Amino acid sequence: MLQYSLLPDDLSRPAAGEKPVILTGDRPTGPLHLGHWIGSLRNRVALQHTHRQFVLIADTQALTDNGDDPGKISRNVLEITIDQLAAGLDPTLTTFCLQSALPALAELTLLYMNLVTVARLERNPTIKDEIQARGFGRDIPAGFLCYPVAQAADITGFRATVVPVGEDQIPMIEQTVEVVRRINRLAGAIVLPEPKALVPTVGRLPGLDGRAKMSKSQGNALALGASPDEIRAAVRRMYTDPDHLRVEDPGKIEGNVVFAWLAAFDEDRDGLRELEARYRHGGLGDATVKRRLEDILQAVLAPIRERRARFAADPGEVAAILARVSETAREITQATLDDVRAAFGLYRLPTVARTIGRP
Amino acid sequence: MLQYSLLPDDLSRPAAGEKPVILTGDRPTGPLHLGHWIGSLRNRVALQHTHRQFVLIADTQALTDNGDDPGKISRNVLEITIDQLAAGLDPTLTTFCLQSALPALAELTLLYMNLVTVARLERNPTIKDEIQARGFGRDIPAGFLCYPVAQAADITGFRATVVPVGEDQIPMIEQTVEVVRRINRLAGAIVLPEPKALVPTVGRLPGLDGRAKMSKSQGNALALGASPDEIRAAVRRMYTDPDHLRVEDPGKIEGNVVFAWLAAFDEDRDGLRELEARYRHGGLGDATVKRRLEDILQAVLAPIRERRARFAADPGEVAAILARVSETAREITQATLDDVRAAFGLYRLPTVARTIGRP
Repeated sequence: MLQYSLLPDDLSRPAAGEKPVILTGDRPTGPLHLGHWIGSLRNRVALQHTHRQFVLIADTQALTDNGDDPGKISRNVLEITIDQLAAGLDPTLTTFCLQSALPALAELTLLYMNLVTVARLERNPTIKDEIQARGFGRDIPAGFLCYPVAQAADITGFRATVVPVGEDQIPMIEQTVEVVRRINRLAGAIVLPEPKALVPTVGRLPGLDGRAKMSKSQGNALALGASPDEIRAAVRRMYTDPDHLRVEDPGKIEGNVVFAWLAAFDEDRDGLRELEARYRHGGLGDATVKRRLEDILQAVLAPIRERRARFAADPGEVAAILARVSETAREITQATLDDVRAAFGLYRLPTVARTIGRP
Repeated sequence: MLQYSLLPDDLSRPAAGEKPVILTGDRPTGPLHLGHWIGSLRNRVALQHTHRQFVLIADTQALTDNGDDPGKISRNVLEITIDQLAAGLDPTLTTFCLQSALPALAELTLLYMNLVTVARLERNPTIKDEIQARGFGRDIPAGFLCYPVAQAADITGFRATVVPVGEDQIPMIEQTVEVVRRINRLAGAIVLPEPKALVPTVGRLPGLDGRAKMSKSQGNALALGASPDEIRAAVRRMYTDPDHLRVEDPGKIEGNVVFAWLAAFDEDRDGLRELEARYRHGGLGDATVKRRLEDILQAVLAPIRERRARFAADPGEVAAILARVSETAREITQATLDDVRAAFGLYRLPTVARTIGRP
């Protein structure tokens, strides 16, 4: 049940025997919740069977606007890894890796920075919007201005052809395509593939209180590892239709969080359409609808919670998994770097045994 | 015979048993000539005995304004290394290393970019001047704007406390000091030392034609590996005093290239002062003065030329030396990166054996 539109050619028609390469990522700034499950994790679990999938835990990117509280990022690296494993990502199918453990990405970023002008970065709509949203004004960190270049390094480092992004992030992919074309022109050959954006069709899952954005800090999120009681309590306090006072009254679906969540989770689409009709007509109580949602959420979250508990009990093993898989990612990104360095014509030192002592 | 002033405390009073760390470097954009010998190489040969000296062959930095002709950089890496060896730098005393072979420098640059604002970089006088000199206008590459940050990474990567620079490069050292203070504040400890600029007292060696700047492209330079005949021919065509037509006429020292070169090369200072007086007074011909300069240059350049020929005959060995010494530099810069990453609180992956196959 992929929830994406704009399927690029690469995705629909992979070369015989070759899986298309997909790159996604998370900034480790807090635990993942059900909004992430609907927005990305659920798709990742499906995509790992049809794609060569990389999931970047973007700790150095998170530094670009969390320089004042770097400890937050470090604390969440293992949490996010546990969330990925709990969601059902299999480290033998999905290469999830720590950005700061991949020096080739930093080197690619610096090389690409020679190909992108400051004026071009300032014109990037995503950067413009985010500068405004974060109140950075003129005093943006250089790392933040250059973050589209770093993202181009991430995408090309894995030679990704498919990048799931929100509509607002499409300019980032366009910037990457520009870099790819410059490198291929420099090399006189196709060194890097051009990536395509994969924009999800499902909307964002609203918060429990009806606000558009679900976030832990706003207290309107349901955590991925929520207990049965937490799930029950969350559904109970979920915002519905404030004018739907008696069972026999007609109810509104629009802006009703319970129905928004059912639309995201309920796989019985016919049953759901019937339920919606009955609710609009009148004669269906919130309690009944909520019970249906709760049953579905309990079923979805039970295996996730179980896996989460198992991995959370052994953080050393989680760290070891992340380290091992990151090592695979390190080799892959290093190979890309070698090709890009060759495109730039950089001198390649011979491999030698060290025989001269340290001065 | 050090030719530097503004000796910082670190240089004059190194801690007992510890040599102060000095970092210099060259952009590999062309072969070195006698101007480089006077401006830096000669000092490096002396400094390698009193300092722990690093010489960076700055190929990635050279890319920031040679993106259109990267091959030029690659071709000159070994040439510059041969020049260093010919000048008398000893790889067991001086760690000369290839910038692009040190991934830690790229990683440090990206980390520091979170601490330096775009506005701060635009205010940097060196950047301002160079943007103008290179005619970059608004379309400067991002890599060029961020080059003071990359330089801070170079300096701190080696924990250098002494950096020989021209007067115009002092703002670069100031930028580095700002970064060092931010890192030390983040870490709550002295992780990095503050570097000091070491500004040479000797002026620039003028070109053979009397122009202030000596450069191969202007045809007014004398190469480090010049043959005895080339040295003789160069001195012969050297610009003197155009009004000094007969031996008995008084001559001018100011703007007279032969005397400018003697001031730089002649170690018999009393003899030189006497010569200058006789030239001013009249009765001393250009031929006599030129013969004195030629004798000195032949003596200075003979051992350099000899070493140069020996190394140039074995480029494979030169590449191997550069690779070996770069490996030492790689370890040192990696250790610094580890400390800076810890200051940022970045998550550190455990060391594990790879047991999971590639997905």
